[in-house]
Amino acid sequence: MIYSSSQIKVRYAETDKMNVVYHSNYLVWFDIARTQMLEEIGLPYRDLEADGYFIPVLTANLEYLRSARFDDILDVQLRVMEKPRVRMRFEYEIKRANELIAIGATTHGFIDIRGNAQRPPKNFLQKINEIWPPKQSTTKPA
Amino acid sequence: MIYSSSQIKVRYAETDKMNVVYHSNYLVWFDIARTQMLEEIGLPYRDLEADGYFIPVLTANLEYLRSARFDDILDVQLRVMEKPRVRMRFEYEIKRANELIAIGATTHGFIDIRGNAQRPPKNFLQKINEIWPPKQSTTKPA
Amino acid sequence: MIYSSSQIKVRYAETDKMNVVYHSNYLVWFDIARTQMLEEIGLPYRDLEADGYFIPVLTANLEYLRSARFDDILDVQLRVMEKPRVRMRFEYEIKRANELIAIGATTHGFIDIRGNAQRPPKNFLQKINEIWPPKQSTTKPA
Amino acid sequence: MIYSSSQIKVRYAETDKMNVVYHSNYLVWFDIARTQMLEEIGLPYRDLEADGYFIPVLTANLEYLRSARFDDILDVQLRVMEKPRVRMRFEYEIKRANELIAIGATTHGFIDIRGNAQRPPKNFLQKINEIWPPKQSTTKPA
Repeated sequence: MIYSSSQIKVRYAETDKMNVVYHSNYLVWFDIARTQMLEEIGLPYRDLEADGYFIPVLTANLEYLRSARFDDILDVQLRVMEKPRVRMRFEYEIKRANELIAIGATTHGFIDIRGNAQRPPKNFLQKINEIWPPKQSTTKPA
Repeated sequence: MIYSSSQIKVRYAETDKMNVVYHSNYLVWFDIARTQMLEEIGLPYRDLEADGYFIPVLTANLEYLRSARFDDILDVQLRVMEKPRVRMRFEYEIKRANELIAIGATTHGFIDIRGNAQRPPKNFLQKINEIWPPKQSTTKPA
Repeated sequence: MIYSSSQIKVRYAETDKMNVVYHSNYLVWFDIARTQMLEEIGLPYRDLEADGYFIPVLTANLEYLRSARFDDILDVQLRVMEKPRVRMRFEYEIKRANELIAIGATTHGFIDIRGNAQRPPKNFLQKINEIWPPKQSTTKPA
Repeated sequence: MIYSSSQIKVRYAETDKMNVVYHSNYLVWFDIARTQMLEEIGLPYRDLEADGYFIPVLTANLEYLRSARFDDILDVQLRVMEKPRVRMRFEYEIKRANELIAIGATTHGFIDIRGNAQRPPKNFLQKINEIWPPKQSTTKPA
């Protein structure tokens, strides 16, 4: 499993006239959490893009449980539970202290600059294999 | 069923360095479609809020199928398939001419200014009952 | 002079907890007005970029006179008063019916993809010379 | 003088297809710097609003000198050079290490929830008078 925790301080620009955070901003915070996680495991997203890889969002799901408000300090907890292969799945919990504000998940693929699907780059696979070691084929001795 | 179609012209501010629309903007477009739909059925959202009702997003699901790009003219098609009761479900298709760009769904509830769950306002229920007439109890003539 | 008028309907996402439009969105609306103006004079910005030219903002000035609110229909009036040369200056008035909401101005230059300053492209200069004809050198007859 | 320095890490959502930060985001960063400064001098903006005061932007000026890019770590330096009275003026420098990215200024007033101009609240004036002590009337001894 990969786990990462990112702190967000809610910006005035992120609020709306309902006096809470406008709901699309949660996707921006999920993105910040992914960027930080990739940095933490030694694969900065800016380097992946410099190498010609992009990781667009394929699907996103959000469940809004409590309102987030201006100046709140939030913790965006990201988990990768399954070994990424051609697709990757990230799961999120947004918390304000012990309160659960929202949960969500996004799935992603790798593409090149032209938008064509790509296999993940080697340094990415290598890093993933360190975290989820490939299963050894168990061979019985004769 | 309620159906509404809203036209969006992609803004430069909505693009990102991947040269496509940043994915959180789709939620903003869904919101525009809801606002237009409510206007079309005679229940402008600004009036609902003036009456003390808010319709926050409870869940959101998005599937990104093709990239949207700067200056694209998109059609956000909104459908309400089931009669709204305490909760409402909106379904969306974003199209560029005949190409399907994204699909999604959001669910919503009614709250008051304090954030407490509310039953929908009377004028809303009346309008919904015009669109989905309540089933008559069938009484046999004697 | 070039004049262009663009209609904006204020989005819920553009409001903030002060119940008015968050002030940075006015720059986005100015941008929409520039895009529409370039389209109207036959030089769509997407084509300029496809030809390798970009028109970044060098300076921006804004004066906020009245609040804009959710669902307002606004008119963004853009004027180019002086013939663009290496730099261009755009002036803006945002109106809600007869009320003046904000005024502003932005200046811009041309750059290439690497960020180096460029002279405006030929088709741009040609169009500008149609609008502001170059002064004829007055030659006295012998 | 009041001085405050806020760190910003550029978000992917803040970039545009020109591969740089979209220019309206600088106003959001200025806002973050103001919020942090008010917090630092003991007058959190959320408390000012809770007391019924709002500090809308009246004017904004920006000069864009260099591009900011995804994942850049920027320092937003805010200065209040003149003692705030009915109006306040904030000056900004955005730096990436030693490079100056942008400069700007905003002016602000105090209003109440109805949008009517207000004198600054007492706790605000008190704090300002600590920073800029009122000039003593010099009285000669007899």
